[in-house]
Amino acid sequence: MRIVVDAMGSDNNPDPDVAGAVMAARKLKDTIILVGDSVLIKAALAKHDTNGLSLEIVHASQKISMEDKPSLIVREKRDSSMHVGINMIKNGNADAFVTVGNTGAALGVAMLRNTGLGRITGIKRPALGVIFPTPERPMLIDNGANADCKPEYLLQFAMMGSVYVERVLGIKKPRVALLSNGEEEGKGNVLIQETVPLLVNSNLNYIGNVEPKEFMQGEADVVVTDGFTGNIMMKTAEAVASYMSKMIRQYIKSSPRTAVGGLLARPAFDRVKSHLDPDEVGGAPLLGVNGVVIIGHGRSGAIAIMRAIEQARLVAEKNIVDAIATGIRREGKN
Amino acid sequence: MRIVVDAMGSDNNPDPDVAGAVMAARKLKDTIILVGDSVLIKAALAKHDTNGLSLEIVHASQKISMEDKPSLIVREKRDSSMHVGINMIKNGNADAFVTVGNTGAALGVAMLRNTGLGRITGIKRPALGVIFPTPERPMLIDNGANADCKPEYLLQFAMMGSVYVERVLGIKKPRVALLSNGEEEGKGNVLIQETVPLLVNSNLNYIGNVEPKEFMQGEADVVVTDGFTGNIMMKTAEAVASYMSKMIRQYIKSSPRTAVGGLLARPAFDRVKSHLDPDEVGGAPLLGVNGVVIIGHGRSGAIAIMRAIEQARLVAEKNIVDAIATGIRREGKN
Repeated sequence: MRIVVDAMGSDNNPDPDVAGAVMAARKLKDTIILVGDSVLIKAALAKHDTNGLSLEIVHASQKISMEDKPSLIVREKRDSSMHVGINMIKNGNADAFVTVGNTGAALGVAMLRNTGLGRITGIKRPALGVIFPTPERPMLIDNGANADCKPEYLLQFAMMGSVYVERVLGIKKPRVALLSNGEEEGKGNVLIQETVPLLVNSNLNYIGNVEPKEFMQGEADVVVTDGFTGNIMMKTAEAVASYMSKMIRQYIKSSPRTAVGGLLARPAFDRVKSHLDPDEVGGAPLLGVNGVVIIGHGRSGAIAIMRAIEQARLVAEKNIVDAIATGIRREGKN
Repeated sequence: MRIVVDAMGSDNNPDPDVAGAVMAARKLKDTIILVGDSVLIKAALAKHDTNGLSLEIVHASQKISMEDKPSLIVREKRDSSMHVGINMIKNGNADAFVTVGNTGAALGVAMLRNTGLGRITGIKRPALGVIFPTPERPMLIDNGANADCKPEYLLQFAMMGSVYVERVLGIKKPRVALLSNGEEEGKGNVLIQETVPLLVNSNLNYIGNVEPKEFMQGEADVVVTDGFTGNIMMKTAEAVASYMSKMIRQYIKSSPRTAVGGLLARPAFDRVKSHLDPDEVGGAPLLGVNGVVIIGHGRSGAIAIMRAIEQARLVAEKNIVDAIATGIRREGKN
């Protein structure tokens, strides 16, 4: 396996990106290719013992920032680490691409037909899946690639999510649900109501609709939503979790009694935190493009980046792209 | 002031509903009218000292359950406590109605033109506002009354939310924002993008778009969204907060050290909980109907119900219905 890592992705690039790549090279024994400013990458690599590891550097003269507009990036930063890295997958020079940079830019570059990967034949809209970190590990799809959706997109998201969860997480006949504002028939917006019959008539294991609480409890393995709602939902979950953590820390410090209590109870807090930390599960797979792309959080550290690389390896190994192509042909015959 | 309370609303009705009404009658010195099964209400009242309080009972032979379908309720339960209570407001026999029962049913009954309140002239869609319990007390509107929205509905939600926040919470020139998946221009779904120019050209203090994190931090006073997204967002916030509380309790109990720590740190937890407890701020005002309706959580206890009654009194006193009617006429002239 040859896995390309965007060395210029994280908020503190290239150090965490390079450190994650070194950890992954050691653990997986695969070749990890670091793409970006070769001078900076070499300097970052010099901080590690890379003896015996299979690490390569590919130079890219441009860097995409979190502030760059995806629409401009695609045209104006053609020698960015994302363009160069994704192009290596397209040309068969590597098996998977990992970035923790600008999500919109990664989507745009991956979807380019000439220099990027383009869509799998029959896929209307690629989507971002995200694994929720609670112990049941449910997937939410779409997490922000498509703000406006049609029922047939949601049907395809359901299929792609099922393929991922079945092959990568090993769940047989994944339970598929739509995210809705109530579980009863007749609830939901027009999009949800029109998607229900498509799922009922599909080959998927559609179990009905779920609300956010049931999603978190893992009552379905794949929960399908449009990218606007999905993005608001994941950002709300993150905001509430970090708000609560911050408030608990702050109030615990406000008296000696609670401060001692907080110190003693700390192992419990740390366990809870791990259940709501997206870094625990790697990045979000971009499903529906002609190649393996994993996109992580900009604030990822080395360990989160190593996990995203492990995940990318698994997705490549399990042939998710072929499985989605097969899935879409099967749906077409239905 | 005469405030009608649905005695059959809460999950454990009528005890919490009646207890909340008694507390409110004592605190506010207003007349509280309990509507529902008069035998059950009398039995519940007998548990309290009601000496000197102005409490009335109005009988209603039917009760709406949380499982009842709103569409059926409106036609088939015409003598429900909701129908009878809301009809008293319509006929000028009382100033405000409070229920913690089935939200969909309350919406449907309030919107009836003949026996209910109907819409304020010019209002396209009434909406549910909800005050988020963080210290900044931001309002999210709509919280679930309208799953599918048009830009002109969102403009009206913004106006109604501004009126409420200005009159009831006393915030001058409330900052209005749209809930979006990113703050930059060009983000958002089609609905959000098409609503932006309407807000820019309005008399409202529109400050741009916010993400869930900024909403929680109170960076805007009124955050506008469609009822589907709003409902998913509020339910996600509740689900994450209750998940975290549950996990912290569970893990704290798992060892003697953390158990002692938890006991000592308890006051800190209780303070954090109060920031994420919707009961702290009463119920959700239904804005845009011709009368005052406050809808609370089914799991409300007496204190939450008392708070909702206090809130209803304030909304009636501040003439929110007239202010919204004025607001809509002003928008029309714009």
